[in-house]
Amino acid sequence: MGEVAARFAGIVGEVNLLTGDRISEDYAHDESLTSEPRKPAYVAKPGAPGEVAALLVAAGEHGVPVTARGSGSGMSAAARPREDGLLISFERMNKVLEIDTGNQVAVVQPGVTLAELDERTAEAGLAYTVFPGELSASVGGTVGTNAGGMRAVKYGVTRHNVLGLQAVLPTGEIIRTGGKTSKISTGYDLTQLIIGSEGTLALATEVTVKLFPRLPHGATLLAPFGDLRQVMEAVPGIVSSGLAPNILEYIDNLTMAAISYNEQLSLGVPDEIQQATQAYLVVGLENRDAGRLDGDVARAGELLAELGASDVYVLEGGSARKLIEAREKAFWAAKSAGADDVIDVVVPRSEMPGFLEKTRETALAAESGAIGCGHAGDGNVHLAIFCKDREKRHRLLHDIFADAIARGGAISGEHGIGAAKKRYFLDLEDPAKVALMRRLKHAFDPGGILNPGVLFD
Amino acid sequence: MGEVAARFAGIVGEVNLLTGDRISEDYAHDESLTSEPRKPAYVAKPGAPGEVAALLVAAGEHGVPVTARGSGSGMSAAARPREDGLLISFERMNKVLEIDTGNQVAVVQPGVTLAELDERTAEAGLAYTVFPGELSASVGGTVGTNAGGMRAVKYGVTRHNVLGLQAVLPTGEIIRTGGKTSKISTGYDLTQLIIGSEGTLALATEVTVKLFPRLPHGATLLAPFGDLRQVMEAVPGIVSSGLAPNILEYIDNLTMAAISYNEQLSLGVPDEIQQATQAYLVVGLENRDAGRLDGDVARAGELLAELGASDVYVLEGGSARKLIEAREKAFWAAKSAGADDVIDVVVPRSEMPGFLEKTRETALAAESGAIGCGHAGDGNVHLAIFCKDREKRHRLLHDIFADAIARGGAISGEHGIGAAKKRYFLDLEDPAKVALMRRLKHAFDPGGILNPGVLFD
Repeated sequence: MGEVAARFAGIVGEVNLLTGDRISEDYAHDESLTSEPRKPAYVAKPGAPGEVAALLVAAGEHGVPVTARGSGSGMSAAARPREDGLLISFERMNKVLEIDTGNQVAVVQPGVTLAELDERTAEAGLAYTVFPGELSASVGGTVGTNAGGMRAVKYGVTRHNVLGLQAVLPTGEIIRTGGKTSKISTGYDLTQLIIGSEGTLALATEVTVKLFPRLPHGATLLAPFGDLRQVMEAVPGIVSSGLAPNILEYIDNLTMAAISYNEQLSLGVPDEIQQATQAYLVVGLENRDAGRLDGDVARAGELLAELGASDVYVLEGGSARKLIEAREKAFWAAKSAGADDVIDVVVPRSEMPGFLEKTRETALAAESGAIGCGHAGDGNVHLAIFCKDREKRHRLLHDIFADAIARGGAISGEHGIGAAKKRYFLDLEDPAKVALMRRLKHAFDPGGILNPGVLFD
Repeated sequence: MGEVAARFAGIVGEVNLLTGDRISEDYAHDESLTSEPRKPAYVAKPGAPGEVAALLVAAGEHGVPVTARGSGSGMSAAARPREDGLLISFERMNKVLEIDTGNQVAVVQPGVTLAELDERTAEAGLAYTVFPGELSASVGGTVGTNAGGMRAVKYGVTRHNVLGLQAVLPTGEIIRTGGKTSKISTGYDLTQLIIGSEGTLALATEVTVKLFPRLPHGATLLAPFGDLRQVMEAVPGIVSSGLAPNILEYIDNLTMAAISYNEQLSLGVPDEIQQATQAYLVVGLENRDAGRLDGDVARAGELLAELGASDVYVLEGGSARKLIEAREKAFWAAKSAGADDVIDVVVPRSEMPGFLEKTRETALAAESGAIGCGHAGDGNVHLAIFCKDREKRHRLLHDIFADAIARGGAISGEHGIGAAKKRYFLDLEDPAKVALMRRLKHAFDPGGILNPGVLFD
């Protein structure tokens, strides 16, 4: 064991420090489709914040770059380690420390998965309402990428639901930011700055999240539309209705066909309607009162019909759950269909019709495919890109991102930039903002040891 | 006119650059009770973002410190200028640029008041839901301090409702952050960093805010409690009920007496109940449906009785509005009663009973008074401090803030630190965090021209 490895092993214990062949392939990648796996020199599994701090200090002294990893379910290669680097895996820091019903918050370690947090909060009649597709995701990972998901249309994304952090700075200090309250005006908001920083500023070692009462009654409506533009134009009407849907998704016909096939889903939509459908809208409603829910379902049905749906199906419990699960697996459907990349552009929701039309034209002109689904209520469009030629694909993505930015949107709504989309970010973002972000990075991490190569070169 | 004044006048026009006796007393202060007014050397009233940028560049070159001012309704002397400084008043940049119903956002200049924004959004059936007590506050000022107010218990504070900014950096670059979407994972969140930075990092020249459907039906319940601790213990039960109140305030008996007297308020609470009351809970409910509202009012009434209220009064429209307005003027009641300071500590809401009990003891021991009201749902306690002796008051505040921090809270929930509470902030905050914040300040403002003396020395 070399000197550096011995130092890391002295911090976390030999059994928790992996090198060479003891490092499995899993640690070499996340779920980005375009980044080659890369095995790190060291994998450390700390068990406490103090160990994380000591690892960062040691890494700083030895000039070893550090990448943090939760469950490895990220989409932008932000958790892909450096070959000469240390990967800090939070798999052992996986305790739910507290479910505090009086303050309606949970305090968890970063390695806790969303699935486990969901189970634990359910016992208290509460819910953590951030549900990105992948529930094996770790809370720490969702903080890194500012994860969103379907419920964001009602409850917001990670940023809106994390109240406080314990975090380790690259210089080794352990700080606490925010707390069990949703309002603090006492200096700069470090919580919000660390959220979405993709492991480049500080490593969260404890996360305090806001919980909501778990509403007992829910329903899911499926509305086929003959025209994609019509779906998009219907969205503002539903948002402004006051029905406060907790799900508002669109799924285009090709994606619906793929996920239905993959998940053996049968939704009871007659063939002739399916064939005349360009896209579907999925509307989720929830209420603490069954009678009120029924009233909302009836109102939503009328509204969807007024807005141009060819029909409206109220899905029964089982098929509703299956559809939502299938939608959450759209990424896997795209992957198994041979997609060459998956992106999650965001635009103001009123720009979605124009953006999707333009994207279709751009993709056609490049002899490529761009099909998808997305969080329609948030303007967050998930597209599977089919284009084998690498340079052609780069130009296509560049054009799609540039169009989104021109419409007041951004490259990513929830997946982050990571290493995978860095070239577009650096190319298309305002240089004054990138320069400012670099100075902020330096203010946190003067030695540049945290996730070099992510966000910036 | 000196060289520097001439340069500023060249940017904004002579009529919009005030010096000497042309500067009125108004520009010398905000509403902080403890900070002496201080007239600046220059007041500039820019009309466009480019003028703000040119002013900052010129100020940087001449080493002139710059303070931004909205309506001057802040409570922490963050808008009090330096004697040798330039005050940038946003009074001319007061246009509502857009009410965008498709995306449910408004785009406004920083000098727009909350009262005007409320009027303009009402025309579209929408609402900007941040209502701090003072509706003459400017949107820019609320961004600076991360203002909260009564509706925060349901809708969050400024931070949760501002989606994007146009801002001028101290180095003169004009950047855009965020946009008309509520989710972006594309680099560090500069919007959130600028919000609450009290004019020390960048100056907002355009603000994009989230709007909600304006719900047509509302009701206000008033519940007297015999015991302050009981009020506080009732709060988590109401929050977790799923009733989603848009107002959840406590008012102690002395404050209720003061605001009732000041505003000639008669709420129909019999004398014998008033005399046995230590504090009141005010619960606001709203709904898009009148029948549902009635159901919620009935349920809330039962719940309050279960939680120990001595009675529950459903206030009629006029008296409800008067009570809310009177509560919003609690600051003025405290001021006219001779309060020596007003603070807005925040603690986790489950800590409120213990915190208020301890605060009462601490104040008694210091032969001082600490009475108040507050945003109970958020753990945000507004206290009027009666203690003439300056040094004694400093020790008292220090002890109150230290206790709040020990309970997981913070010095300010919505008023900010400004210059008025800086000594407590620097004394009680983790030095590692203060050092990091100083580095962030330097990353934005290497010349240190923006609001020196606010937050830091």
